[in-house]
Amino acid sequence: MIIIGEKINSSRRQIADAIASGNREYIQNEAKAQRDAGADYIDLNAAAFMEKEADYLKWIIEAVQEVTELPLCIDSPDPEVIKKVISHVKRPPMINSITLEPTRLDGILPLVIDYRATVIGLCQTRNRMGRTAAEKVEIAGRLIEKVTSSGIGIDALYIDPLVFPVGADSNSACATLDAIEEIMKQFQGVHTVCGLTNVSHGLPNRKLVNRTFLAEAVARGLDAAILDPADKQLLGALRASLMLMGKDEYCMGYIKAFRKGLLA
Amino acid sequence: MIIIGEKINSSRRQIADAIASGNREYIQNEAKAQRDAGADYIDLNAAAFMEKEADYLKWIIEAVQEVTELPLCIDSPDPEVIKKVISHVKRPPMINSITLEPTRLDGILPLVIDYRATVIGLCQTRNRMGRTAAEKVEIAGRLIEKVTSSGIGIDALYIDPLVFPVGADSNSACATLDAIEEIMKQFQGVHTVCGLTNVSHGLPNRKLVNRTFLAEAVARGLDAAILDPADKQLLGALRASLMLMGKDEYCMGYIKAFRKGLLA
Repeated sequence: MIIIGEKINSSRRQIADAIASGNREYIQNEAKAQRDAGADYIDLNAAAFMEKEADYLKWIIEAVQEVTELPLCIDSPDPEVIKKVISHVKRPPMINSITLEPTRLDGILPLVIDYRATVIGLCQTRNRMGRTAAEKVEIAGRLIEKVTSSGIGIDALYIDPLVFPVGADSNSACATLDAIEEIMKQFQGVHTVCGLTNVSHGLPNRKLVNRTFLAEAVARGLDAAILDPADKQLLGALRASLMLMGKDEYCMGYIKAFRKGLLA
Repeated sequence: MIIIGEKINSSRRQIADAIASGNREYIQNEAKAQRDAGADYIDLNAAAFMEKEADYLKWIIEAVQEVTELPLCIDSPDPEVIKKVISHVKRPPMINSITLEPTRLDGILPLVIDYRATVIGLCQTRNRMGRTAAEKVEIAGRLIEKVTSSGIGIDALYIDPLVFPVGADSNSACATLDAIEEIMKQFQGVHTVCGLTNVSHGLPNRKLVNRTFLAEAVARGLDAAILDPADKQLLGALRASLMLMGKDEYCMGYIKAFRKGLLA
């Protein structure tokens, strides 16, 4: 299971403030806390800053690389921004994200090759996002075809089937869970990844919904997630669900995390 | 989802004490609390009392039926005990349980017919318990054959694939999850049911493991569980997982339970 720490994202007020005010230490502490909680990648996003995005992202990349050896997940909807900042990354990064939109594909895939990166592929075309399980799987198949025909290994691709608020459509989460299972079965070697917060939009006790969705997704084969690893209840659900799926030999990952006080 | 309230079980010290001392009110309060938390059946077990089991079970049945209209789940490993007490039950009960052992099958199946009961079938033969997913599915198939060839509808049968401690065998929980999915796919109309506590034996933070296992099992198709519905974190995992599987129209089950203060 690959854990991508989501906290350094300019859509969060405290992060946007820290970026705008140049509060390097705040950003660095967020990176260290996620590393200590077990993150495999640190996601970095400055997309809220529009035309200043690339400059700020470079600054964040440098700040975070001063305090951790973890690889970064460079997160921008704009391939031009990714192109501008990626040379500052010291270790092979993850790129977040491509879709079937041609400018994003054509802009990003050469970078994946040049920087030996991995890449998140959203189940989304230029015009629409995959809503049903069948749509998600169909778009996933086309993403895999595009990526592998560029000479990139299928195991460098993390398919994000997307998830929409279950409060607006009772079948939305189930469509994502079905898609995860089907994608992992149909396309051997590919990974699946998912964000969690969107699913609970508008519902009470959102964190309960998010962590339950994570456990269910792990039960269906999910092998990467974008989340806050410092959320002890969320990490508890993750470590327990992996253990129960037989992905934690001798339960040592669960027991170690428990002993470190990381689970609740 | 059918919730079978597990708390009135003589393996629990407080229940054994209440039974032995004739504390009717204690037993009745346990029944009411489980009813109020959303139980569909109240499980009643006096197996710890050996030769007094049938007498005590009759007493419990009467005590509980005084305070709730809910159907009962008559829980004994001994078909003779079930035979002795079942006529005291006012509504069609669930019988817990049969296995492939001939005395249990031959003793219980006529009662299922006579009392229009449902029945839990454990994935267990006379000599062995199903350990791998394949063994569990194979035994489930034989149970279904026995039950349906007696003239009982497949939808009266709740298959319990059994779960063993993941701390002793990393693949034990996964075998159960795989079996649940396969049984629900292969044998249309049958139900699956599972107890939760065995899976976490020997591990820290057992309740976290139990409720995560429940969420994963729901994600794989489980449609009944034996549990403590008054455990708010467990009920939270259950309601959220059902909602995310598209089994809670307009999320009303989740939202109502939240408003009643039943979820955490």
